Amino acid sequence: MHILLNRESEVPVYIQIRNQIRAMIFEGKLAAGSILPPERKLADSLGVNRSTVLNAYKELKADGLVDSHVGKGTVVLAHLNKVCESQDAYQYPVWRQYFNQNAERSNDPLLRDILEITNRDDIISFAAGISGVETDPIDALSGMEEELFVQKGHYALKHTPTEGFTSLRENISVLMGKRGIECSPEEVLVLSGSQQGIDLAARVFIDPGDVVIVEEPSFFSALQIFQSAGARIISIPVDENGMCIEVLEQILQRYRPKFIYTIPTYQNPSGISMSLERRKNLIELAYRKKVLILEDDPYGQLRFEGNRLPTLKELDKYGYVIYFSTFSKIFFPGIRIGWMTAPIPVINQFTMIKQLTDLHANSISQWMVDRFLSSGKLEAHINKICNEYRAKRDLMIEALLNDPVEGLQWNKPLGGFYLWCRLPDGVPNSILLGKAADKGVAYVPGSSFCLAGRGENYIRLNYTYPDAEKIEQGIIRLKEAINESIASGGRSKRSRISEIKPIV
Amino acid sequence: MHILLNRESEVPVYIQIRNQIRAMIFEGKLAAGSILPPERKLADSLGVNRSTVLNAYKELKADGLVDSHVGKGTVVLAHLNKVCESQDAYQYPVWRQYFNQNAERSNDPLLRDILEITNRDDIISFAAGISGVETDPIDALSGMEEELFVQKGHYALKHTPTEGFTSLRENISVLMGKRGIECSPEEVLVLSGSQQGIDLAARVFIDPGDVVIVEEPSFFSALQIFQSAGARIISIPVDENGMCIEVLEQILQRYRPKFIYTIPTYQNPSGISMSLERRKNLIELAYRKKVLILEDDPYGQLRFEGNRLPTLKELDKYGYVIYFSTFSKIFFPGIRIGWMTAPIPVINQFTMIKQLTDLHANSISQWMVDRFLSSGKLEAHINKICNEYRAKRDLMIEALLNDPVEGLQWNKPLGGFYLWCRLPDGVPNSILLGKAADKGVAYVPGSSFCLAGRGENYIRLNYTYPDAEKIEQGIIRLKEAINESIASGGRSKRSRISEIKPIV
Repeated sequence: MHILLNRESEVPVYIQIRNQIRAMIFEGKLAAGSILPPERKLADSLGVNRSTVLNAYKELKADGLVDSHVGKGTVVLAHLNKVCESQDAYQYPVWRQYFNQNAERSNDPLLRDILEITNRDDIISFAAGISGVETDPIDALSGMEEELFVQKGHYALKHTPTEGFTSLRENISVLMGKRGIECSPEEVLVLSGSQQGIDLAARVFIDPGDVVIVEEPSFFSALQIFQSAGARIISIPVDENGMCIEVLEQILQRYRPKFIYTIPTYQNPSGISMSLERRKNLIELAYRKKVLILEDDPYGQLRFEGNRLPTLKELDKYGYVIYFSTFSKIFFPGIRIGWMTAPIPVINQFTMIKQLTDLHANSISQWMVDRFLSSGKLEAHINKICNEYRAKRDLMIEALLNDPVEGLQWNKPLGGFYLWCRLPDGVPNSILLGKAADKGVAYVPGSSFCLAGRGENYIRLNYTYPDAEKIEQGIIRLKEAINESIASGGRSKRSRISEIKPIV
Repeated sequence: MHILLNRESEVPVYIQIRNQIRAMIFEGKLAAGSILPPERKLADSLGVNRSTVLNAYKELKADGLVDSHVGKGTVVLAHLNKVCESQDAYQYPVWRQYFNQNAERSNDPLLRDILEITNRDDIISFAAGISGVETDPIDALSGMEEELFVQKGHYALKHTPTEGFTSLRENISVLMGKRGIECSPEEVLVLSGSQQGIDLAARVFIDPGDVVIVEEPSFFSALQIFQSAGARIISIPVDENGMCIEVLEQILQRYRPKFIYTIPTYQNPSGISMSLERRKNLIELAYRKKVLILEDDPYGQLRFEGNRLPTLKELDKYGYVIYFSTFSKIFFPGIRIGWMTAPIPVINQFTMIKQLTDLHANSISQWMVDRFLSSGKLEAHINKICNEYRAKRDLMIEALLNDPVEGLQWNKPLGGFYLWCRLPDGVPNSILLGKAADKGVAYVPGSSFCLAGRGENYIRLNYTYPDAEKIEQGIIRLKEAINESIASGGRSKRSRISEIKPIV
């Protein structure tokens, strides 16, 4: 009997022996009625204790594969043993033939790479869209364990309705009320992160070939989701007042899109907020053309200065706006809890698809958020992180202004997570990205936020995640990388034809 | 100024005042330069304290909507104020026009209803597919809070890679090794529940019109997911040895399915396990016809008696089997953590779609499972719940045998969660379901597990969730409901033409 042991493996040796003998039985190499080697003999030949082999045989017996007979030894049982035909003639799958069109359309590993990069210690990451850990409201978790232990089968560990915990939906409904959006708990669906809402929207609304409208630039995952769903995506440029509604109006003369996807406040990646006038015009246009609006609002509460503008949902009288937001940017990113607010027929349809996707958002995270909302500490926490993030934004801008790179431009966002920068002419991301990584700094290239390779000379910098020291050090590294890119590839005046307009 | 206050609302009064004035400004009812009523006057007219109105005005000022001038009062600011055209001519959306084909295909609220029912106190539920709370390993959570507090920004609260925490993937790889499946951590993808794996499989593999093969009966969510993805589903009957491979072989003469979806061990809903011979034949057939196998194995570890049969994955030499399992049935149902094991090209493609769907499984649940696996207590826990569930199964069968209903039949499952029962002739679920609910007992009708309305005279009973007393009481109620259905609708010998074969 040929058994190979791996002593480095975390799989115990007796289990390894069991597995290999079992495989021989299944493959017919050990026929019915075969007798296994006596325990001591096998133990000696393998250089293990007798008890190890004994345990392996016990397992095989418990599995119903062998039986031990006094005086006869350990015998392979008959009924499980039919010799399988030789399988050597078969081939490993050629996977490509099995993947569908959707899979073919979804091959950009950018987001996955970013998640990986943010976990690396040697890189200063301006790439992530996540909150700073100094400001995590860790105290909100206090008493959690005690509460879980008080009651057997605590509801935080059980299934919840697909729509979410009732008390969490109620708390969100009150939160929305405080923000000027009237909605009942029934008009709230708890999501496994607000990105799930975008994905569900694609699954509920988009048939392949349907037109959808996005801003340019826009959130890359949304672009990927709509692309993966087979939508025809048309992008509307963003200027300093947000999405250009005049362009949109012309597009709507020609196309009948299912929806317009917008991040009106502290937009990702541009940091721009849509003006009130444009907000009103957008709503008006949606009514006129009967187009839905998906309003993605992860950053709206993170106002550093300037006016608080109303959400589109707040301005909407007829229910054309479907509103998405999240706790990931203000509570903890890893808990994956967002929500949406929409008329009940929409909530019902989203719920139907959500139950197929993941049954419900995990209960323990829902419970954690619900406890936090009930504690009444949310507003104070938001004020605190706004102060923190404003200071970080200022620090990043200061670092950029200190010994500045000629031709590097940026906007100054009034809230949110990002600085959107235009690179000096002739510094393509394709060169800069590698140089920056060599220097130990990461960002997201502008082309990720645009279609058809546009946005090549923009980059998005996040200032909320890194601490003050890293912001300063990271910007120094980035400027070095840009200067070297100018020096090397440098300053060739050739400019891309289909470049988006500077928004600064 | 017309302001309506709702004193029952959880939204504070000053916020209600703020919201309503804000709405008037946005709607142009309060023009630029308008002066708001003096605080005291408005307070008197609303019957609130002056400080309440003061706070409302403060909020409006912070929002940038008004400004206060000494001697002039509180003035609406100009730049935000452009009168919106009257919107009264517009209509509310007619939602149906916006929903896509996918949404049209996904309109069975059964699962959602079941989740709701299991949360009701007055109903004894045999409908849920969840574990009993008495056996929840609550001790596994001990020390959790302390660990979270030790380190600011604990990794359990941060983002994880889309594939899952590295240490959890390693622990799962070892677990698989112990169960005879060799796989590296890179061949493991952590899922937000194993159902997500089925949904991702549909999104990775199925183009509308593709053929997929399922067992009949089979897991209802899988049927719904494949249907929603636009697959053409062909079902193969299950007999006492599992899926009828001879029938499958004939089907494969005619069709070229993308995959075969099977729950080979303690199948949901039938409780049947596929024989070893059929497992081998199925693998052989898959190789021969180059068809993938999705092996769904939520219950495989819950063996009460009989042989431990190898998983299909264990028998597979070429990587045609994609294996799914879950912690929901053995740890806590609400945490939503499952996993899949497959060749790396498949893992990569699933990861790509998963990152669009929900970025990653929530971190805190992953961490909870990882801690539990690292504690080494999983095997003892599984033994414990097997003993518990075996006793519950026996109790349910005993209760059925006590004063039996003529014509009611069932199988005795050797493991897993369910008793699959055939109703006496002429007792349609459509009548029984309501009667049972009236009596205070819930189950899942057989038609949910079959296509085209078949399975009408079967029901699935879960014995793991209710406690002993509820099992006895619930079966009494169920038998009453069946007897009354016989008495009333009764015993009409008309039988459905396309009825599935009894599997008992």
